[in-house]
Amino acid sequence: MLVVKNARVATMTSAQALPGDGPLGFIEDGAVAMENERIVYVGPSSGAPAGETLDAGGRLVTPGLVDPHTHLVFAGDRAHEYAQRIAGASYLEIARAGGGIRSTVRATRAASDEELIECATKRLRRMLASGVTTVEVKTGYGLTVADELRMLRIAQQAGAAAGCEVVPTLLGLHALPEGLSREAWIRQVCEELLPAAAHAGARGCDAFCEEGAFTRDECSRALSAGQALGLAAHLHADQLSDSGGAALAASLGCASADHLERTSTAGIAAMASAGTAAVLLPLAAWFLRDTPAGAKPFLDAGVTVALGSNLNPGSQRMESVSLLLGAGCLFCGLTPAQSLWACTRGAARALGLDDRGVLEPGRRADLVLWDCKDAAHLPYHAGVEHALTVIARGIVVANRESACN
Amino acid sequence: MLVVKNARVATMTSAQALPGDGPLGFIEDGAVAMENERIVYVGPSSGAPAGETLDAGGRLVTPGLVDPHTHLVFAGDRAHEYAQRIAGASYLEIARAGGGIRSTVRATRAASDEELIECATKRLRRMLASGVTTVEVKTGYGLTVADELRMLRIAQQAGAAAGCEVVPTLLGLHALPEGLSREAWIRQVCEELLPAAAHAGARGCDAFCEEGAFTRDECSRALSAGQALGLAAHLHADQLSDSGGAALAASLGCASADHLERTSTAGIAAMASAGTAAVLLPLAAWFLRDTPAGAKPFLDAGVTVALGSNLNPGSQRMESVSLLLGAGCLFCGLTPAQSLWACTRGAARALGLDDRGVLEPGRRADLVLWDCKDAAHLPYHAGVEHALTVIARGIVVANRESACN
Repeated sequence: MLVVKNARVATMTSAQALPGDGPLGFIEDGAVAMENERIVYVGPSSGAPAGETLDAGGRLVTPGLVDPHTHLVFAGDRAHEYAQRIAGASYLEIARAGGGIRSTVRATRAASDEELIECATKRLRRMLASGVTTVEVKTGYGLTVADELRMLRIAQQAGAAAGCEVVPTLLGLHALPEGLSREAWIRQVCEELLPAAAHAGARGCDAFCEEGAFTRDECSRALSAGQALGLAAHLHADQLSDSGGAALAASLGCASADHLERTSTAGIAAMASAGTAAVLLPLAAWFLRDTPAGAKPFLDAGVTVALGSNLNPGSQRMESVSLLLGAGCLFCGLTPAQSLWACTRGAARALGLDDRGVLEPGRRADLVLWDCKDAAHLPYHAGVEHALTVIARGIVVANRESACN
Repeated sequence: MLVVKNARVATMTSAQALPGDGPLGFIEDGAVAMENERIVYVGPSSGAPAGETLDAGGRLVTPGLVDPHTHLVFAGDRAHEYAQRIAGASYLEIARAGGGIRSTVRATRAASDEELIECATKRLRRMLASGVTTVEVKTGYGLTVADELRMLRIAQQAGAAAGCEVVPTLLGLHALPEGLSREAWIRQVCEELLPAAAHAGARGCDAFCEEGAFTRDECSRALSAGQALGLAAHLHADQLSDSGGAALAASLGCASADHLERTSTAGIAAMASAGTAAVLLPLAAWFLRDTPAGAKPFLDAGVTVALGSNLNPGSQRMESVSLLLGAGCLFCGLTPAQSLWACTRGAARALGLDDRGVLEPGRRADLVLWDCKDAAHLPYHAGVEHALTVIARGIVVANRESACN
């Protein structure tokens, strides 16, 4: 039995849309006790069971963070595209000139398993040390049946190596493979790839619904095929144009629709009715010099808002948990408490996971002790990391002595 | 003799406004040799003098970075104001409600010397390890003659403790002290504080020209008094309104005008004629949810553009060198090479220092070996730090084994 005591415990049991610290569901002078990977007690320190004690010194404790949207298995570097974009080139112009997703596909196919695992493990270790205990990882840089399954396997191996829970998502409809017709690839994805991926441990499926990528019908076929295999469905929706992606995600019963920079009011209403979570990716919009989606219309409509890093080599390479929380505030207009809720409970919901993101008895013992007392300190003091102790499944997996304040 | 060899040496000897990597003045397969705190050779590796050799492995080497605008000696935390601002409160509303600069003045006065030195030293150590070898530090949270001189002394002591060169600036006209008339404070600043500060080692003087702060006439009196003592003059100009601050800075021959979110075309032209550098603070504008100043009008007019962190507890608490470089690109529209030039040569110019910010024989041996080959990698992969080896005055002051890529 491990007991964290004398903490400001942000349980995340309250509603996200509340003002002030409302969403955090604070227990002052609180404790969290855990045993066999599960939380067994959350309440006042005075009532906590006996056990090995970690004194939080009055600091903030939250659920382990969840990153619901990454493409972190990749080889190569696209810093030159960043420079091109600052000089004025658009996302589609770069893609049409041979850059973009396909250049990462080439580099990733060319890299050895060992190289890919090493890079991905480093990224996951940095995330884990920063407080992220669950990371969704998408395939999509393979674009053959064999290469996509290889990416899935590498994501799992990197997660095991880093000691960080990876939730793998099959993103077959990321870009059209060269030398194949649209119909042939979509059939392969639906009939071969998704069944094999589900068998190999994929937990979700995703598709990129956009002009220049895949149509609503194509995305619908692939996601329906994935859902029939028990996978949680996600959709890259309405990033570059309002293509009805949010409404499609809602009509399919997707766990999440992601991006949403250009979603209409009707799309938001459909998401609310369907219980589809909104995964906002403000760092990606900033990286692309686009306007990030605001959170207010989603919260007002009753949609759960999550934040994702969208870590990838082309359209978002910035890495920092505190920076993501800050972008949630400064770009999306979330309060600090809502931003933290979005990175814990909101993100867990976006992945269809109800066993984490909240501190309650019976949930997974994933939690973070932060080197501050207030949730607002994290986005306020962005760019440095503030996790002191990270606990995953009841085990201390990262620990830092020094404070960053 | 220490020789860094086999490097992509960004000398910064070219003009800032050039496209592509132009501003970097690259020497491929280059070397930098140093002795007695000074650079003695910059050129091809093949022609470098003999000495203790550090093999850069083809990586990027730049001058040590210079941060020309910080308020990093302070006590207390204003994260609650960040939350208020996200909820809609304005900078002036927060200040009028007893928050703002004056709340930090109270906390700083109440803190012991040891506490202040410890906090400031931590911040400077993080900056030094990230590649910043010169940091300007402003007073302005003392607001009595004795407390301002105490801040100056603490900045110097923290610099010595961190092994980082601090350039102290006397910012007497930061806010009006309570219980004193405007005229009484300005006289104290001009007649007592500035002479004592110059004697105690201040290198610059500064003033906050803004409605609710100080008028152009008041700023002019204080800066002229500082200049008569040999101090480089700076001005917080045109941040919240176009108050003619840039033109005033130019007319006084200031080394820099800082902020400039609302500077008119005429103000920019005046700066160009006077040779006054523009210190842009994009992280502060973002933090305040304001529109950051674009760099293009300044570059087009021939004004040197520098980037500053503006690290302070109220209006910019984010810390990350790569994030500042990225903000220079994504917010100000600088190319990655221009952004790096702005944080080296541009920032040195803004402080009136011509002995650093450039890699040439005779200049200070302040340089950074980065864990990447391309300048674009730094802003592209923002949020993590990329300095591998930091050399200040010819001595290795920070060294990291592990890569962040």
